[in-house]
Amino acid sequence: MVSRGQGVSVQYFEDYAPGQVYASGRLTIDAAAIREFAARFDPQPFHLDEAAARASLFGGLAASGWHTAALTMRLIVDGAFRPAGGILGAGGELQWLMPVRPGDELRATVEILETRPSRSRPGHGVVKVKVTTLNQAGEAVQTFAPTLFVERRAAAAG
Amino acid sequence: MVSRGQGVSVQYFEDYAPGQVYASGRLTIDAAAIREFAARFDPQPFHLDEAAARASLFGGLAASGWHTAALTMRLIVDGAFRPAGGILGAGGELQWLMPVRPGDELRATVEILETRPSRSRPGHGVVKVKVTTLNQAGEAVQTFAPTLFVERRAAAAG
Repeated sequence: MVSRGQGVSVQYFEDYAPGQVYASGRLTIDAAAIREFAARFDPQPFHLDEAAARASLFGGLAASGWHTAALTMRLIVDGAFRPAGGILGAGGELQWLMPVRPGDELRATVEILETRPSRSRPGHGVVKVKVTTLNQAGEAVQTFAPTLFVERRAAAAG
Repeated sequence: MVSRGQGVSVQYFEDYAPGQVYASGRLTIDAAAIREFAARFDPQPFHLDEAAARASLFGGLAASGWHTAALTMRLIVDGAFRPAGGILGAGGELQWLMPVRPGDELRATVEILETRPSRSRPGHGVVKVKVTTLNQAGEAVQTFAPTLFVERRAAAAG
């Protein structure tokens, strides 16, 4: 079996079953990182300026949802969920549930919801997952439910 | 009426109606930017290395979907869609339809799908939109259908 990173084995389509949960490490987001991402990709006052943020629906400086999403991807790529062929999907339902604040410590879980062979790609299977991003209080700040394409073990051997 | 940027007026909830389409400017993505974003947020071989990307389902270097999403947000924030209170939503269905390649020129459109008053926030309305990200060939590379919260004109006057 191919492995990558700190000795964690890659998982093939056949290794996944509904109910499995894969964890990530943790990372902390600070005000400077929130402002830097926002300046580049989402330059709105409530992501850049504390006073403007207090006057907004956020009630205080909050990370761009796209920043939360990008950090979640990093957490997952570095975590225990390691599908063969990489983490590669067509998208899904993305929900931001709570603001992400300076000093928040984020982690993510990947839960396997559903698996089925791919009709269009015989060497791959389709794996529907739910990615939940949690803060240090254990509150879900984001969920994402993408459909992923994962290599089948037979394809890797062939 | 408040205005921001190049004299484009802010729009209130009452200004939106289904069928309206708001355009963005354009931006070009290059291989260096694809690799830089990926190194930080989505360090998988098909976003970092041309040879690895050729061997993947992408068939060549492709931007992280989160990079496309973040650039789309930037295009919209700088574009003609300027809801009062900012572009602020709870998420929605996100779909990546085609790879984004080095040299692609992206633009985005925001189409108003549906508007209704907010029950939980009397000063705001709920606006459902479809954001489509297009490449230089006019092909949709991403769609996102978020629900946004937009200030009502009465609230701004009051």
